[in-house]
Amino acid sequence: MREPALRGAELETYLAEAFPEAFNATSGLAIVDVAHGAARLRLASAAHQLRPGGTVSGPTLMMLADVSFYVALLATIGWEPLAVTTSFNINFFKRPSLGVLLADARLLKLGRRLAVGEISIRSEGDDDLIAHATATYSIPPANRRL
Amino acid sequence: MREPALRGAELETYLAEAFPEAFNATSGLAIVDVAHGAARLRLASAAHQLRPGGTVSGPTLMMLADVSFYVALLATIGWEPLAVTTSFNINFFKRPSLGVLLADARLLKLGRRLAVGEISIRSEGDDDLIAHATATYSIPPANRRL
Amino acid sequence: MREPALRGAELETYLAEAFPEAFNATSGLAIVDVAHGAARLRLASAAHQLRPGGTVSGPTLMMLADVSFYVALLATIGWEPLAVTTSFNINFFKRPSLGVLLADARLLKLGRRLAVGEISIRSEGDDDLIAHATATYSIPPANRRL
Amino acid sequence: MREPALRGAELETYLAEAFPEAFNATSGLAIVDVAHGAARLRLASAAHQLRPGGTVSGPTLMMLADVSFYVALLATIGWEPLAVTTSFNINFFKRPSLGVLLADARLLKLGRRLAVGEISIRSEGDDDLIAHATATYSIPPANRRL
Repeated sequence: MREPALRGAELETYLAEAFPEAFNATSGLAIVDVAHGAARLRLASAAHQLRPGGTVSGPTLMMLADVSFYVALLATIGWEPLAVTTSFNINFFKRPSLGVLLADARLLKLGRRLAVGEISIRSEGDDDLIAHATATYSIPPANRRL
Repeated sequence: MREPALRGAELETYLAEAFPEAFNATSGLAIVDVAHGAARLRLASAAHQLRPGGTVSGPTLMMLADVSFYVALLATIGWEPLAVTTSFNINFFKRPSLGVLLADARLLKLGRRLAVGEISIRSEGDDDLIAHATATYSIPPANRRL
Repeated sequence: MREPALRGAELETYLAEAFPEAFNATSGLAIVDVAHGAARLRLASAAHQLRPGGTVSGPTLMMLADVSFYVALLATIGWEPLAVTTSFNINFFKRPSLGVLLADARLLKLGRRLAVGEISIRSEGDDDLIAHATATYSIPPANRRL
Repeated sequence: MREPALRGAELETYLAEAFPEAFNATSGLAIVDVAHGAARLRLASAAHQLRPGGTVSGPTLMMLADVSFYVALLATIGWEPLAVTTSFNINFFKRPSLGVLLADARLLKLGRRLAVGEISIRSEGDDDLIAHATATYSIPPANRRL
């Protein structure tokens, strides 16, 4: 199995600097594991992410899916923070209650300019899918690397 | 032209109670206008919503699109806070810099159980689209109303 | 209003040669009108496009939406037959019965490499939407033009 | 492993009657295998499904994806021919040349009213994805069964 270009701990260090609002000691978001072409993230959802009905809000799940694919992509191609989402599609199946959410992202296609992947979100300890997303990212040309 | 079921000021009052994290004096999110079948929201984006490259993050735009359609739906059918997104699809065209974003949501189809709509996001004072989304919401049965 | 790069009659001549199965005297598909950034197509649906329940099949509507956006794109950028769909998303609202369908496609964003647009399908003489789609096309580099 | 509600041979017999245009001796479409929650179909693509550039057309791939999920759904819930697509999203990765295409559909979520699944399309003998789709189907109420 091919090694990731960046390991989880390295990515967390970089992300804490580049996205201090998302990756910090109190955000609840953490990288569980990365591999070449894949990443697992966890989100300890917080009261402020709930919506009427007492379930985690849709935009919180979208953020988790999008960030998980970003981490899977960077674990595969290396530190390209300017990679950006060009399209994103999500289906919601269940309303998750407060607790730990796990997101598994994997690349379906890695091209020179575009990467496409899918993300599955579950509650910790429950096999049922909460949401499933597909995302397309644009990879910046090499000379635009930071 | 048909009157909205709820006016913008009423909706903001309800939303500030139901979604205190999204609708509060410092969130930057506000309802500009509502009509039967439509809503315009504005978001004064803040530094914490930026991502590498200095542009507003994708999840922030997804949140704005999703909330705008929710407001358009409630303006049309009345206060149904348990209406939830069942699917959401977005394409990103431009990377918006910090500033005021405007989102225009309108219903394409209002059924008994499902509502589908589209959302266009622009920067204030610029006609170019930043992002375009479509969303499907599930409308709860009447006896599940709060 | 800006002129289209190609008029409907020119496009039909080209398409009849490049896509003889879709554009021919018996396919029921025709260009009603084109403009810079837009196209309207009509499909006289036929019995073989029906599905159980007596309504026009989903794939027939997908084909109509996809081809309509292709025509809108070529009307805008000129004859680039190698432009291809890279992603496509459609929501279905009503089951259309046999008859004439009208598809209105318009460009939302025209970049150098990608074009994104939306397509609305209705039955002739009925304002209700039958389906609404968004499509992304990849525009081939100039040196790949036929 | 749970048995399918209907086997491939039974489904082909039903489908040849319900969709004679798609399932017939010359259409090139066949069921390879079904299981509870999954189906594999093959399409021997034909010259009339090509588009400029000599690759199989997008709408042909959309049809294959949509039909494959329909078969996976019916293999799971039994003969419900009035089940219809309510939304469909597809990403294209490669342009397939003439030959045999394989589509693997699997259910991600089976609810009482809605089923959601994903479909992967490859060329026979090649592991690379050609396209990946997600589809939502509406399941008709029991009293609307044929």
